[in-house]
Amino acid sequence: MFFSFEGIDGSGKSTQARLLAGALRQRGFEVVEVREPGGTDLGERVRTLLLDTEAEIRPRSELLLFSAARAQLVDAVVAPALNKGSVVIADRFFDSSTAYQGFGRGMAGKDWMRDLHAFATDGISPVRTYLVDLPPQIAADRRQDRAADRMERADIDFYTRVRAGYLRLAQEDAGRFTTLDGAETLEVLHTQILRDALSVLNRRS
Amino acid sequence: MFFSFEGIDGSGKSTQARLLAGALRQRGFEVVEVREPGGTDLGERVRTLLLDTEAEIRPRSELLLFSAARAQLVDAVVAPALNKGSVVIADRFFDSSTAYQGFGRGMAGKDWMRDLHAFATDGISPVRTYLVDLPPQIAADRRQDRAADRMERADIDFYTRVRAGYLRLAQEDAGRFTTLDGAETLEVLHTQILRDALSVLNRRS
Repeated sequence: MFFSFEGIDGSGKSTQARLLAGALRQRGFEVVEVREPGGTDLGERVRTLLLDTEAEIRPRSELLLFSAARAQLVDAVVAPALNKGSVVIADRFFDSSTAYQGFGRGMAGKDWMRDLHAFATDGISPVRTYLVDLPPQIAADRRQDRAADRMERADIDFYTRVRAGYLRLAQEDAGRFTTLDGAETLEVLHTQILRDALSVLNRRS
Repeated sequence: MFFSFEGIDGSGKSTQARLLAGALRQRGFEVVEVREPGGTDLGERVRTLLLDTEAEIRPRSELLLFSAARAQLVDAVVAPALNKGSVVIADRFFDSSTAYQGFGRGMAGKDWMRDLHAFATDGISPVRTYLVDLPPQIAADRRQDRAADRMERADIDFYTRVRAGYLRLAQEDAGRFTTLDGAETLEVLHTQILRDALSVLNRRS
């Protein structure tokens, strides 16, 4: 059973991913947490490259680097964990590429991007994706207290496009996405997510 | 005007690429030489990753890393050089991915790979590709005196598939490829390549 968390930087999705993992472990589930890019030796090295504030990276190259890290993560961690019957919780997965590189950087060819994702993930998709939605200005204010990496230095216009992209993805794939109001408190969000995740897990087992 | 050199490791293609660049410069051409993966700051960092003998890299991830380095190389070096009217000589380009990752590692989906190449290169293709063909065992013997990197540690079976892949690509795209017998002397090969390159350059200018 594979869950992913999506949202713009500062939306609170990473916190929610951690909280869900902890709550499911308390209920006896075997949980594997992964984050993108990263989660493997190769992925962490690609992550360093991608988040390096000095690096000049072209949009097409950026998309392919994220995809390379994802392919490694799927083969080395996600697929083996799912095969063992574990729950996998991903802090970002392929929807991040569609939202950030596709909508955010205005890269054309959404159909083609679907093919790229299918290739990178070997066809593995989350059964449920939690989109923690938040207006870019609020997310930016929340990020004030963190040092900005290369990806986070983008401006509000960029994040506005990314957010709109996420909302469109959620609309187009309503069966997989659950959209949450990131302005809610941490506890309210966690309760909503946990209830939904447990219902998905019960349905499948 | 864009030329690429292809062949298995040890075929002598890098030497021929250098010789052609020198000969064209002597004739007054502005020549930009690139090598894959690499040729940009990002590309060299990806190159280090790819050639690291310690790194465990999955085939799909490998293909995407090469593609990421290629996208950066095209945007930062190849396209600007071609726009200025320079001759670009590439030691490996997208055919290497098709031959090594596609045929060598047995990755399916050749049509899809064409789409991936078109995306990574933004549609830019060499006008002429010199395939320096050599049986894998002879190439392996030639490589004896060099320390092997991760890519070169592959076995003879692997290189046999790569070579067969190259020959098939050359057959399918006979208008672009010129296949040369890598067992010939350096001088004979250089003379053949230079004559062909000059005829291509004269035809186009």
